[in-house]
Amino acid sequence: MTLNQMISEIKPADQEIVDRARERTSRLVMPRRALGELHLIGERICGIQRTLEPSVKNKAVLVMAADHGVAANSVSAYPQEVTGEMVRTFVLGGAGINVLARQAGARVLVVDMGVIPEVSDLPVEEAVLAAQSQVENALLIRKIAKGTSDFTLGPAMTREQAEQSLVTGYEVASTLFEEGVELLGAGDMGIGNTSSSSAIGAAVTGHPVERITGRGTGVDDEGFARKCRAIQKGLDINRPDPKDALDVLGKVGGFEIGGIAGAVLAAARFKRPVVIDGLISTAGALLAYVMCPTVADYMFAGHRSVEQGHQLMLEHMGLRPILDLGMRLGEGTGAALAMHVIEAGVRVFREVITFEEAGVTEEAQ
Amino acid sequence: MTLNQMISEIKPADQEIVDRARERTSRLVMPRRALGELHLIGERICGIQRTLEPSVKNKAVLVMAADHGVAANSVSAYPQEVTGEMVRTFVLGGAGINVLARQAGARVLVVDMGVIPEVSDLPVEEAVLAAQSQVENALLIRKIAKGTSDFTLGPAMTREQAEQSLVTGYEVASTLFEEGVELLGAGDMGIGNTSSSSAIGAAVTGHPVERITGRGTGVDDEGFARKCRAIQKGLDINRPDPKDALDVLGKVGGFEIGGIAGAVLAAARFKRPVVIDGLISTAGALLAYVMCPTVADYMFAGHRSVEQGHQLMLEHMGLRPILDLGMRLGEGTGAALAMHVIEAGVRVFREVITFEEAGVTEEAQ
Repeated sequence: MTLNQMISEIKPADQEIVDRARERTSRLVMPRRALGELHLIGERICGIQRTLEPSVKNKAVLVMAADHGVAANSVSAYPQEVTGEMVRTFVLGGAGINVLARQAGARVLVVDMGVIPEVSDLPVEEAVLAAQSQVENALLIRKIAKGTSDFTLGPAMTREQAEQSLVTGYEVASTLFEEGVELLGAGDMGIGNTSSSSAIGAAVTGHPVERITGRGTGVDDEGFARKCRAIQKGLDINRPDPKDALDVLGKVGGFEIGGIAGAVLAAARFKRPVVIDGLISTAGALLAYVMCPTVADYMFAGHRSVEQGHQLMLEHMGLRPILDLGMRLGEGTGAALAMHVIEAGVRVFREVITFEEAGVTEEAQ
Repeated sequence: MTLNQMISEIKPADQEIVDRARERTSRLVMPRRALGELHLIGERICGIQRTLEPSVKNKAVLVMAADHGVAANSVSAYPQEVTGEMVRTFVLGGAGINVLARQAGARVLVVDMGVIPEVSDLPVEEAVLAAQSQVENALLIRKIAKGTSDFTLGPAMTREQAEQSLVTGYEVASTLFEEGVELLGAGDMGIGNTSSSSAIGAAVTGHPVERITGRGTGVDDEGFARKCRAIQKGLDINRPDPKDALDVLGKVGGFEIGGIAGAVLAAARFKRPVVIDGLISTAGALLAYVMCPTVADYMFAGHRSVEQGHQLMLEHMGLRPILDLGMRLGEGTGAALAMHVIEAGVRVFREVITFEEAGVTEEAQ
């Protein structure tokens, strides 16, 4: 499957079904559209899934993990080994994403897209991809390489690696959709990856580095200035072409960000809704959007992160976040938490009865 | 049980337990407080329930229903019979609150606090109060009277009725708490009750009627002006004393609003969190707050309604809404939807493992 093939198969959401869904909403036994965004969500899922009987019961969260060469520039308050340690924690089931995905009824699939240490001593469950899998948290090894190169010194990866990370994310997500996943969350793990994500955001949206860069994970004033300098240097030295997503990904991105971009393309190709999370997940979605703006039809923004660049990227794609709870963890946590609201939109659409069914007097017209 | 007895038994949330909870949060395997408001929610529940092992599994939503004499002033786009019709719909399980409560794993108890028609032909389930009840949606008949009087002509109810509605709400909620309910939502139904709620909001907060009044359910410009005039007339003719909640409730309130105020007092008395909903639910909570400001320790604001007065009342009590999704249905829908986020806060607190347990390297101090 080439990238061009992936993209050529993506069609817009079905607006005619959305219109029919709106008509049903107008008959629900409540004042017109009184549940606000829940109606919009339910109707969008109808248009995405091409049905007036939408379903988001079968849920999964992908946590794409990789290491970043830019971490050598002291852009994070945590040492690089935390990436691999957190991958282990995800598989143990003890991290934030495990807890929130469990509550949402979603499986967690951690994908090693390019973590430095070997994590293959963990229980790798290929079978977890199967729809009937009972495994709550599992790991897939899809290492493109052991971390990217430092983008302040040259490209983070080759163009071939960039394409490979996209295709890998596409294939993993495609398998999930083929096995019946109806709602996918896209999460990340990677020390240093807020720097890559801000670099992608600056390259694609044109916003200045200082505006699109946040403090990431526990960075102070001095660290923030250092982080902005590293990102600016990466952009200056590599000059990524904002119209060429593979160029941006290869020069300042990360393997897990490419994986997320590929998963978003797969969601659009398979006509399934995908919930994006915070800054890193949204950077991946933004690259998919550059390749094919139609993917925005399939995306839901789970939440508004406290990372300031996040909102700017969401606006670039015309997305409005569902939740705004001051979160900044990543891992897919905002996506997992928002799944409940998305499912609420679907349930309200399907399960609330009409004025006629209830025998309730309608508003005088 | 007199009102003074109820109030005298209310103690503030335990700040020492909150501090101990914050200490645990600081050790969770994530950057410090990276899940934002989820941590605050989990810690508040610890302080409310006086435990570092909080639980909100057992959930219920009260939908307090009553009719309003002020409806005679054409303040709503719906005729008054809709109140009783909706009570039937709640018991059938087909309304918005039924769908969202079911998703949240919460039972729905509809309480007829003073609906005009007799709804006793519906299956009344007193047994539903029992913790082991399997009944999803049930009705309790606690009619104070068949609707209030028109407050533009005089007091909506007697002071005795106001007290009776408070005590009734307190007793119903107390039974639920005694039977094990750990998280209560407070919803409403009553054609005309946004007018009563805005009148209460204006009386208590001092905001002008035009600022605190919204369009309620499908009201146009002319209807809005009419509604403001009715509310102003009610305030002018009755002159409720803003420091005397029973006086405000009796003169411009409603039986279901008194019931909600009583339920909020019971939550504080029983040290259980209560989720308030939109304008009407918040007006009830505001009356409880006037009687005993400590009740705010036990309240969560489920969402920000599009009703403009809602935000002003929340601010008066120092509450920040959890969700902001353009909803304006009432029934307890915003409370039910927010229960997922509240439970997420509790689960994150209890289930995310620590840096030490995970063997993950901590941030350099």
